[in-house]
Amino acid sequence: MERLYVARPLLPELSDLAELLKGVWASRQVTNEGPLHNQLEAALGRHLDVPVAKLACNGTAALQCALLSLDLPAGAEVITTPLTFAATAHAVTACGMKPVFADVDETTLTLDPAAVALAITDRTAAVIGVHVYGTLCDHRALQQLCDERGLILIFDAAHAFGARDGETSAAAMGEMSVFSLHATKLYNTVEGGLITARDPKWAQRLRLARNFGIESEEAVPLVGINGKMSELNAAVGLLNLEIMGAELAARSNLRARYDAIVDAIPGLRTQVRQPGVVQSEQYYMIVVDPQVYGASRDVIYDGLKAHGIFSRRYFWPICTDFGSYHGAPIATPHEVSVAERVKDRVLCLPFHSGVQPHHVSTIAEVLTEIANLGTAPMAAGAAYE
Amino acid sequence: MERLYVARPLLPELSDLAELLKGVWASRQVTNEGPLHNQLEAALGRHLDVPVAKLACNGTAALQCALLSLDLPAGAEVITTPLTFAATAHAVTACGMKPVFADVDETTLTLDPAAVALAITDRTAAVIGVHVYGTLCDHRALQQLCDERGLILIFDAAHAFGARDGETSAAAMGEMSVFSLHATKLYNTVEGGLITARDPKWAQRLRLARNFGIESEEAVPLVGINGKMSELNAAVGLLNLEIMGAELAARSNLRARYDAIVDAIPGLRTQVRQPGVVQSEQYYMIVVDPQVYGASRDVIYDGLKAHGIFSRRYFWPICTDFGSYHGAPIATPHEVSVAERVKDRVLCLPFHSGVQPHHVSTIAEVLTEIANLGTAPMAAGAAYE
Repeated sequence: MERLYVARPLLPELSDLAELLKGVWASRQVTNEGPLHNQLEAALGRHLDVPVAKLACNGTAALQCALLSLDLPAGAEVITTPLTFAATAHAVTACGMKPVFADVDETTLTLDPAAVALAITDRTAAVIGVHVYGTLCDHRALQQLCDERGLILIFDAAHAFGARDGETSAAAMGEMSVFSLHATKLYNTVEGGLITARDPKWAQRLRLARNFGIESEEAVPLVGINGKMSELNAAVGLLNLEIMGAELAARSNLRARYDAIVDAIPGLRTQVRQPGVVQSEQYYMIVVDPQVYGASRDVIYDGLKAHGIFSRRYFWPICTDFGSYHGAPIATPHEVSVAERVKDRVLCLPFHSGVQPHHVSTIAEVLTEIANLGTAPMAAGAAYE
Repeated sequence: MERLYVARPLLPELSDLAELLKGVWASRQVTNEGPLHNQLEAALGRHLDVPVAKLACNGTAALQCALLSLDLPAGAEVITTPLTFAATAHAVTACGMKPVFADVDETTLTLDPAAVALAITDRTAAVIGVHVYGTLCDHRALQQLCDERGLILIFDAAHAFGARDGETSAAAMGEMSVFSLHATKLYNTVEGGLITARDPKWAQRLRLARNFGIESEEAVPLVGINGKMSELNAAVGLLNLEIMGAELAARSNLRARYDAIVDAIPGLRTQVRQPGVVQSEQYYMIVVDPQVYGASRDVIYDGLKAHGIFSRRYFWPICTDFGSYHGAPIATPHEVSVAERVKDRVLCLPFHSGVQPHHVSTIAEVLTEIANLGTAPMAAGAAYE
């Protein structure tokens, strides 16, 4: 059976890549802030409308470099959401700090500022908001809270490449924003990451943090790691920047088709539409209300799988389910944590230009039939693997 | 003026790389333990004669993954040498642990077991020996000490790819060994790293540590980072494995030529020749005794630079000179730390197949003339830049 996955990497023509690499091979400068790397940094700064754009070898390293450049005290607490990819919390822990989890807002599923306020202690040093699925955090409320309490605000914008809130680029929110340019991301460099900031003062510290803290042959003023992106990835990034427009348009169309299907089925809701926000088109996510829909999220997951369609239960498990953070409390203004409740209800559907009309029809049929039957339909010829 | 650097990256033919990437482009599996990645891991395990060989995105990430997989307590002390690249100490700090510096042996310039013994406290969790310049640590004495004191021993083998001590591969020493496959390394994947171990029990934990601790869609038992190597780098690695033999041979010949020159000049000594040891041929290092030679290491550095020959003062500054570890004590059985003394005496010469006979002649002339004059000769037509 043909398989359809949530993501499919956007790749340039291999011949274009080989052509671009000729200069790299001739100069033999294959990494360490090479010419293509520097060209891509400049291009991404323009594309994302932000003064500081520093590449990294991956999104997690980008987050580690951001944290290292801030020089927060060892063991400091960093407040973030449990409804995120593992890297958000792990980057904090792997830097010797402690992630503290605060609940998400019911509508946006992003960090709830009221929950963050409840989680602040005298050891709190920073807050990491996550624009999960590309839905933007309430960045103004988070910024106001952090300003009032003297905390650094950074954003994990792994899902929000190119997103904007009116005039404000997602890359220009908080003190820094961190992007993933992994193959699963619409705009990708195969493996890659990016750190952006409004304040030019961060540019040099971020360069140090990603290059072992080395300023010159003589001086190593900062603790840094190897966060460097090579010319191989930078070349892919330059070429993908040219072709991403078509992928973005295909996904916008697909989102409209999915929306029409999901909106018509009681008990399913789409990702919130934020007025004035330009979508990153990174994920297409639905929330299942099992009481109204008549079946659980996992029934849909299994039903689609039987047709070779692999949806993803992002983000279940949530961070507080992981072995490393098991049972860690989630600060919440509610009786029960929203994140705890929605983790069993969220599902990401295949979302890329490889999703064909017949795939959309199959998904629509599966969603509708499960709603009618309360169980997964065994389509003619289809079988669980 | 033509410039000659300490390192020059070994690169496969670009057409061979493009050919190998055709399958990657066809499958679109560009990262996350792809087929080339897995093929390279198997090949490197065979090449280095070790059961566990796990690739990483770079050598620092490899060291971080090794440390994370060991699950040492936060704030634990890790004893290592100050005479190493910044990454050794920074990887420890960036993982939330504390590097503690112990002195080096006068002959090998690697971690002195007697100094390590002096540095052990009840917070010590691990020891990182560094095979600096490819000279092997006294691995047996370090292992015995660590066994006696219940400490984990790992090796930073960034300079020791392919080195052996008799029957024992450098990759099979200690609990784990960590390699850099950076472009400056004889065997390179542009950016890359490798973790090796004798005990198969580490294979799965290392895979977790480099993949966000994720075991399955459902389980995240460990704190991990993104340490993944993509298919782009794995492709370079597979091709470079085929062509590295010629580079290795060229460097062995160059080492013999350099040795003949250096041995003839009083006050200069070469890297120690370790009986029964197969050299990695990563660096060619000399130690300058300024009293006997009649001039300092820096005079040689400047003298070569005037001819467009860029040597490197590896490793000066040493870690205890860095802003982040400034003035940290170096445990030593001597009156004055050996590392403190030799940091101003070590120099790495250009060492790769791009070093031509006329370069070697120029280097010989500069070394000899400085010895005779006690100052750098201003060669005809040469000028400082």
